Amino acid sequence: MTISPPIIILHRPQLGENIGSAARVMLNFGLTEMRLVSPRDGWPNPAADTLSAGAFEAGVSVTVFETVEAALADLGTVLATTARPRGMEKEVVDAAGGVRLIGDRGQKTGILFGAENHGLPSDVVGLADAILTYPVNPGFASLNLAQAVGVFCASWGANQGAVGRWEGEKAGVEPPASKDDLIRMFEHLEDELERAGYFYPADKTPLMKTNIRNAFIRGNWTTQEVRTFRGAIKALAQGRGKARIVRDD
Amino acid sequence: MTISPPIIILHRPQLGENIGSAARVMLNFGLTEMRLVSPRDGWPNPAADTLSAGAFEAGVSVTVFETVEAALADLGTVLATTARPRGMEKEVVDAAGGVRLIGDRGQKTGILFGAENHGLPSDVVGLADAILTYPVNPGFASLNLAQAVGVFCASWGANQGAVGRWEGEKAGVEPPASKDDLIRMFEHLEDELERAGYFYPADKTPLMKTNIRNAFIRGNWTTQEVRTFRGAIKALAQGRGKARIVRDD
Repeated sequence: MTISPPIIILHRPQLGENIGSAARVMLNFGLTEMRLVSPRDGWPNPAADTLSAGAFEAGVSVTVFETVEAALADLGTVLATTARPRGMEKEVVDAAGGVRLIGDRGQKTGILFGAENHGLPSDVVGLADAILTYPVNPGFASLNLAQAVGVFCASWGANQGAVGRWEGEKAGVEPPASKDDLIRMFEHLEDELERAGYFYPADKTPLMKTNIRNAFIRGNWTTQEVRTFRGAIKALAQGRGKARIVRDD
Repeated sequence: MTISPPIIILHRPQLGENIGSAARVMLNFGLTEMRLVSPRDGWPNPAADTLSAGAFEAGVSVTVFETVEAALADLGTVLATTARPRGMEKEVVDAAGGVRLIGDRGQKTGILFGAENHGLPSDVVGLADAILTYPVNPGFASLNLAQAVGVFCASWGANQGAVGRWEGEKAGVEPPASKDDLIRMFEHLEDELERAGYFYPADKTPLMKTNIRNAFIRGNWTTQEVRTFRGAIKALAQGRGKARIVRDD
């Protein structure tokens, strides 16, 4: 995707802590432009700095506007975040739907978040192209402002494909062991188990071996893990002699 | 879905504020069981209460464990949250992938989150079935603990279908107006525009009318909106006479 990240717009935010936390989570997910409409405690705000974990220095820009109209003036698409649909004739999207909508429209986009105490006024929601809402617990619906920003930013980040390199793959850098390596490991193990008198009765031996092999194969081991385990088998086998432990069972 | 919500497990959390914020966002998205492994400042913790916005009273239970092994003992599936894959041979999922994995396994699940200062130790990650990670900005990767909890909880909530009732639908309770209503509105408008000398030159009139109709039809108005606008047309038409404003253009 080549869409530039949306702009996060906080409408009349009250607590500097929330502004700072919002900036931190924005930058965590690659969003760098914040706009503040009439922040209660002015700007800059030391409490915001503290909670930002350095996000303002590391890349999040802040512009302060007196009116929401001025803050939206250059945007093509605006989403307004609310806890409920409000009965307005607007499209309603969740975080993932909002990210899709932004991609479909391909315009400069702002996401509006309301004040801590009572959210966005209806006339401000009225300026938006769509309503962004989350599937919250109706009995406990009030999200912290920075969390509300974070849920959207995470959804934006998840859609940018950064995790695509990882998901569904093994995290390790090593490829799985060859079947040849594995089979030699099995034979090594089985030899030693045989020597230890493990396989009994004889007619059950093939089934016991198969069961063990199946269990190990599911692990999808790497060459290194095979090597490590062969070392373990060897140690067990040699150690048995060395320590002169007699097993009765 | 009938899977019970996952349990959020905070491993050696330091700040009560983060524990409280995590509980708040858990309950926002319907998660109600929190486990704490050796919280630095003990439990209960007044700072946690303050930031919880009442979540502990409203439904989030907390159990404290001395060891992570005890906290995981009754669970079938465990995801460990880390900022990077760590080179371990485990499946790596993002938030949405984690929610799918939980659904596929259908077992009692815990999501492990590490301490604010250095995350989860590798031996604790080693106890997990899969690694949960988010597609963060590599240059600013450290999420606030409560935000990390929030991203997962929001993804869980989004998958529970609560927003499914809304997404892609108009939020309004009113159905769109009938075409008959709309056409009478257009005729009303066009009559008044005609009377006002708007349609000029005459040979362009049909095209002008079609363009106006098209613009209004795209709005998918409700009966009430049609009624409101007809009132507006009427007011404009009558007001023109009443106020005796003479328009030259």
